[in-house]
Amino acid sequence: MTPDGFPVVGIVGAGQLARMTYQAAIALGIGVRVLAERPDESAARVCPTVDLGSPSSRADLVAFAARCDVVTLDHELVDDDALEAIEAAGGIVRPGARALRFAKDKLHQRTEFARAGLPVPPFAEVRTVDDITSFAGAYGWPVVAKAQRGGYDGRGVWVLGGPAAAADLVREAALRETPLMVETFVPIERELAVLVARRPGGECVVYPAVETVQRDGICHVVIAPADVPASVAEEARQIGLRIAELTEVTGIFATELFLVDGALVINEVATRPHNSGHFSMDACATSQFENHLRAILDWPLGPTDLLTPHVVMANLLGEDHESLAPRVPSAVALPGGVHPHLYGKEVRPGRKVGHVNAWGSDAEETRARAIRAAALLTGRGVASVSPSGRNS
Amino acid sequence: MTPDGFPVVGIVGAGQLARMTYQAAIALGIGVRVLAERPDESAARVCPTVDLGSPSSRADLVAFAARCDVVTLDHELVDDDALEAIEAAGGIVRPGARALRFAKDKLHQRTEFARAGLPVPPFAEVRTVDDITSFAGAYGWPVVAKAQRGGYDGRGVWVLGGPAAAADLVREAALRETPLMVETFVPIERELAVLVARRPGGECVVYPAVETVQRDGICHVVIAPADVPASVAEEARQIGLRIAELTEVTGIFATELFLVDGALVINEVATRPHNSGHFSMDACATSQFENHLRAILDWPLGPTDLLTPHVVMANLLGEDHESLAPRVPSAVALPGGVHPHLYGKEVRPGRKVGHVNAWGSDAEETRARAIRAAALLTGRGVASVSPSGRNS
Repeated sequence: MTPDGFPVVGIVGAGQLARMTYQAAIALGIGVRVLAERPDESAARVCPTVDLGSPSSRADLVAFAARCDVVTLDHELVDDDALEAIEAAGGIVRPGARALRFAKDKLHQRTEFARAGLPVPPFAEVRTVDDITSFAGAYGWPVVAKAQRGGYDGRGVWVLGGPAAAADLVREAALRETPLMVETFVPIERELAVLVARRPGGECVVYPAVETVQRDGICHVVIAPADVPASVAEEARQIGLRIAELTEVTGIFATELFLVDGALVINEVATRPHNSGHFSMDACATSQFENHLRAILDWPLGPTDLLTPHVVMANLLGEDHESLAPRVPSAVALPGGVHPHLYGKEVRPGRKVGHVNAWGSDAEETRARAIRAAALLTGRGVASVSPSGRNS
Repeated sequence: MTPDGFPVVGIVGAGQLARMTYQAAIALGIGVRVLAERPDESAARVCPTVDLGSPSSRADLVAFAARCDVVTLDHELVDDDALEAIEAAGGIVRPGARALRFAKDKLHQRTEFARAGLPVPPFAEVRTVDDITSFAGAYGWPVVAKAQRGGYDGRGVWVLGGPAAAADLVREAALRETPLMVETFVPIERELAVLVARRPGGECVVYPAVETVQRDGICHVVIAPADVPASVAEEARQIGLRIAELTEVTGIFATELFLVDGALVINEVATRPHNSGHFSMDACATSQFENHLRAILDWPLGPTDLLTPHVVMANLLGEDHESLAPRVPSAVALPGGVHPHLYGKEVRPGRKVGHVNAWGSDAEETRARAIRAAALLTGRGVASVSPSGRNS
């Protein structure tokens, strides 16, 4: 407990999600303790209560949990046994192992979702290369192979064009002791996401469905609300709620969806605050971080409505090695305003170092403003300013 | 500078204003260092970079400023000489001495405002009791005496009903070496406040005029926007802007106004983020804390429009010595939602320990919700719950 009687939430991992959860905790008086691997990590730079340790060390996790009232996770890369050890020692981990397994074990997730009648693409477990070729025989090439858990070399998803690629992958994955599964290749029209917050007893709130726009496989822009027919948005929300119920998650649960020929198919899920929910930090009645905290503390959840017609988030992906600081003034000067959310990370090309939210009544202008601000912040915008000082 | 190249703002004082300024700084990547008297002060509990020292020690202030790029103030109780010493040593203090004097020296403020044609009540300097009685001869009893700077026994304002009270006060103030001034007693109809943020070069933004509702001389509720004729609200904003220009403030400048027979009269001013601006933390395009930071760093200022028709803030004044923690769930459960902003302070009767914001489209309902949440959080609400569990 804090000196003034508030619960202490322990966050395993000190990335930007922990940092933004800490921001939400301050206003609510909630204590936060962060388990960081290094003192210069995103959340460790702003939170005064930091334990140094490894999320893959059972001893570190158990010692950390003993100093917290509830433990939650900045990322899913935490050892299952360690989480069980925390619970065995009387600690509380939220979300719990049942929900986490849906995010960590893709075959389990697909199997359970299919059994519950939720929309997943056709899939199969892969033990030998024949499992892939016979699957492709039924559904056609290309197919998508996935590591059931994690992956290697920073990858966990491979699009396979034919039997040779399949044979290569199965051989390599066997060497890496990485079990695979296979799914049909989904010709993606658009991508949506939906966030649900759920309390232990089952109370849920669901955020407006959003559209996520990827670039090079990385989330680039999130548009809230998604510009899709109301029936599609409502179906996305219902899918999110059904998954929250099925997984018995506590906290935020994010579901990414493909829109294919007007129908929704579940892509991935995450059992934590999610990049697709960062729009909620501005111009939304309750941010995903606040609702995550309220959910894991079993407090009543907050409303999720947007306070403006449109909110657009653009991620800041490093373009160089320069500090963002000198670029902030030109970005925040954009007419209509934007809110940068910077993660306190050293800038490197391709590294996610922050995001920016814009809000407004005109969808296109709001989106353009968010993207322009992101370009100015990452330095991409500099080249498009003509010598006269006018924007090109 | 921070490791990632951002400026470090030093805040003298570690109260709730420093705490909320720190909250705004995190998203912007700005570094914050706090000068606290004790490690358990409001801002020192949440900010990892705390120097222990006294705001009345010149040595502490100069050493503190040497570790910061810009110094700003949580409160005005800072020694003028110390601030000059910081500037003499090459440090930057914002707001500067010129603006601070308007908040610290009431006679100076009234004299300069009157000279600029700004609406202040009739006033006079007091050297002897005759200055008060002759002033009352011209304007009538009661009159309002004020300490020119500060005050004593926690008071700086006295309403005097006649010559005997005046004589007592003048005698006591002389013993305390407290110079006085006198003003007419203003029969207050309602009270308004207006906040301006100003950059060093003169760029200003002004927030919607708000109504402040006092109880026992303490701000109880703030209603944004004020429910007054548009011409009155606009006049309040223009007064705020003219004062910002006159004082050459850098940062937030708050002006409290009396509304008397439809006309505005300036009450007090503050050269810092202000209780009357806490509404801006929720449902406002840019909070006063963010704009204060942007102003003192000479960054472009953010828009000040409300994102919902109404926002109401209610202060949380301690009623007992109990932790607020067990009371948060019932407050945040109120339909429509509220945002508590808690200051991490031990609760004591009469102590300001937080505030709560509510927002919505119905002015009366929004106000009732904020007040109800404040009552639930401070424990006043408990008695009004009947045994059946229904609210009385």
